[in-house]
Amino acid sequence: MTVNLKNFLNPKIKMSKMGEFQELQPIDGLEVSSISADLYGDGRDDLSLFYFQDGANFASIYTTSKITSASINWNLKVKRHFVKALLVNTKNANTFTGIKGAQGLKEIAHALSKSLTLKSSQSPKGVSDVVKITDLLFASTGVIGEEFPHTKIKNRIPELVKKLRAEQNKFVWFKVASAMMTTDTKPKLAYEECKIGNKLIKISGIAKGSGMIAPNMATMLGFIFTDANIPSVFLKAILKKVAGSTFNSITVDSDTSTNDMVSIFATGKAKNSKIYNVLDPKLQDFEKALYRLSLNLAKQIVVDGEGAKKFITVKIIGARSNAMAKNIGFSIANSPLFKTAIAGEDPNWGRIVMGIGKSGENIITNKVQIKIGNHLVAEQNRVAKDYNEKDLKEYMKWGAIELEVNLNLGNSSHTVYTCDFTHDYIDINADYRN
Amino acid sequence: MTVNLKNFLNPKIKMSKMGEFQELQPIDGLEVSSISADLYGDGRDDLSLFYFQDGANFASIYTTSKITSASINWNLKVKRHFVKALLVNTKNANTFTGIKGAQGLKEIAHALSKSLTLKSSQSPKGVSDVVKITDLLFASTGVIGEEFPHTKIKNRIPELVKKLRAEQNKFVWFKVASAMMTTDTKPKLAYEECKIGNKLIKISGIAKGSGMIAPNMATMLGFIFTDANIPSVFLKAILKKVAGSTFNSITVDSDTSTNDMVSIFATGKAKNSKIYNVLDPKLQDFEKALYRLSLNLAKQIVVDGEGAKKFITVKIIGARSNAMAKNIGFSIANSPLFKTAIAGEDPNWGRIVMGIGKSGENIITNKVQIKIGNHLVAEQNRVAKDYNEKDLKEYMKWGAIELEVNLNLGNSSHTVYTCDFTHDYIDINADYRN
Repeated sequence: MTVNLKNFLNPKIKMSKMGEFQELQPIDGLEVSSISADLYGDGRDDLSLFYFQDGANFASIYTTSKITSASINWNLKVKRHFVKALLVNTKNANTFTGIKGAQGLKEIAHALSKSLTLKSSQSPKGVSDVVKITDLLFASTGVIGEEFPHTKIKNRIPELVKKLRAEQNKFVWFKVASAMMTTDTKPKLAYEECKIGNKLIKISGIAKGSGMIAPNMATMLGFIFTDANIPSVFLKAILKKVAGSTFNSITVDSDTSTNDMVSIFATGKAKNSKIYNVLDPKLQDFEKALYRLSLNLAKQIVVDGEGAKKFITVKIIGARSNAMAKNIGFSIANSPLFKTAIAGEDPNWGRIVMGIGKSGENIITNKVQIKIGNHLVAEQNRVAKDYNEKDLKEYMKWGAIELEVNLNLGNSSHTVYTCDFTHDYIDINADYRN
Repeated sequence: MTVNLKNFLNPKIKMSKMGEFQELQPIDGLEVSSISADLYGDGRDDLSLFYFQDGANFASIYTTSKITSASINWNLKVKRHFVKALLVNTKNANTFTGIKGAQGLKEIAHALSKSLTLKSSQSPKGVSDVVKITDLLFASTGVIGEEFPHTKIKNRIPELVKKLRAEQNKFVWFKVASAMMTTDTKPKLAYEECKIGNKLIKISGIAKGSGMIAPNMATMLGFIFTDANIPSVFLKAILKKVAGSTFNSITVDSDTSTNDMVSIFATGKAKNSKIYNVLDPKLQDFEKALYRLSLNLAKQIVVDGEGAKKFITVKIIGARSNAMAKNIGFSIANSPLFKTAIAGEDPNWGRIVMGIGKSGENIITNKVQIKIGNHLVAEQNRVAKDYNEKDLKEYMKWGAIELEVNLNLGNSSHTVYTCDFTHDYIDINADYRN
């Protein structure tokens, strides 16, 4: 199967075609399973477990919200560089669930530690390995404030552990990724390969998040698994860097979840030569692969935005700093006015001007150049001389719309990804200029 | 006619009934007119002129956008404490219109100065009074980036000046307020009276702004006229203070216009005793009246939000500072997730929690108390003990929804006003928890 990232580069393709699945590969040292604890009351899978036979190096980034779920709090409590398992539940966020929510999670942790320790003692290696509760990570997504169904989850732990399998073919990946969906219409999956030294490295990633006004707080969960042998502290540095221009550069409705979490786990089974330095040139290929994979997953989240029909790339160049470019990019990408104009296929570039202005950044109006696709639409504080609304309207029909704002102030840039606002929004707004 | 502000205090009233009109009174020293320059091509009124026979003291606040219209730039160029007239056009924002837009405005200013000087020389007083272009203010609202139709406007100036009338009955106020609408469904009008010393003071105010995803950049224009005798510098101080908790405390779609402007004009014809100090107790009654009038106009803008069905009051109390309260208030009020929940009449208070969290303010989760109407829904980091979803669902059906977040950290508070997000947004999101 081909790398679906290509589809994003063909702007004429329909949005619904952008998220074609890649065939994910098994990661050596990882076992996965997913089952139903009937949290939704309809028998769908809602629990997924990721178990690392010999543990994994690990790094994670979390939501910037000042209110966080019991699972995020759990993960933050112990400074971990090595983990044995990750348990994910959907339907309930375990946020604003008081002491009961935290205690419920602890009970689940004890049950999981017990089951995994038992499993380890039964392994063919014959070496009994105690899995401590501090070796465990948790992620939750769902409604805030509802009582956390810890008993229902706890009771299913033995079965979940029993079903752990090392042979993750594409169907298994599809199943575990589906088990953490809320209102996502499809699971998000991505795969990359690279080399560290002469060793082939596999990276399999899954994510959830359902974009525009995602009812589940647009919670984004992203879990990336690799067989590379990389120390946790370097994983952290690379993940942070990569996430800044991928997971942290998408927006669908400007809301921030209490449960966002992106993690990378490295089993080390590829047995690449040891890395002693984050700047080791051997890591460059890995970082690039991780960037492609993360961007792919992030874009899949945008594409799955409810009601979204167009994929929008907002590129800010010529900024004084990356922060300035990012601020202006998000100011445009979060603007409902801008997003409805795109939905209505109306090249109303005034709304881009508005987005730049309201960012509060000190731009010089005369220097700003605005391009939609390859069409220069505005410069020198006015509409471009060659502005041709007819050509532009043709471009606006495409499935992927790209716009570029050149501030002509410096050399920094940033790109933000978003989707349009559709439905009744359009009826009211999109035809405004006609 | 009764003061329609009352209607906002009756939460059970339907939103469409909230904006009943008040009967505005003429302001001594003011003449107004409105006509069509056919900017929309359908003959509707699109120009309004406000002329002060003997000039007026004046204060103004403008958009915080870093990109501003030629009219805002014009108003900011000369430090004015005294003006002779204000001209408002709709349809075209005169923003990002380059040098041509600025020059066009200057031509209009010259034509207006000429016509008003001529009018002054023909006045029964027989005193010829030269109206300079620096005595003039301008406001524009409409599409950004389209060529400014300055000739069309200029050609209509003589007729506009000819039609100036001092007798502003309620129909005249209705007409001039209508002439500055874009997609507003109705003009916004408010009236208040107060006393300064023993003199009766009249205040008539008009506004435009059409809330949620207002196609016209949600541009807010507000013009307030009074016969009070108050120095411009004190008008400025009072307007800034009042606007902070009225015009600057509403949000419909989080977008900021390049053309926002709120001004107050005082003709002095009420001949109240001179004010020497902004803290003069004689001004207290005036400030209260201006607050009521401004809040009334601001609420009318929210009520006219396209598609909006519910008026929402977000009250943050117990904050460490007013800025903290305002930031959290806007974080909730701007959240599409929160607004769709209200539209769906779903007491999904988790979205309020989300809004508090994403504000970035350092709250203490355990201390936060959340009330919807009179119902305590959450405290001590969990759902309230007496939480009754049935009662709350009944309350959610009302036309005006009030919520209160007590941070229990200090004594500062702030209230923000907004409306719900309706239409297809609901179909997708509002029933999420069912």
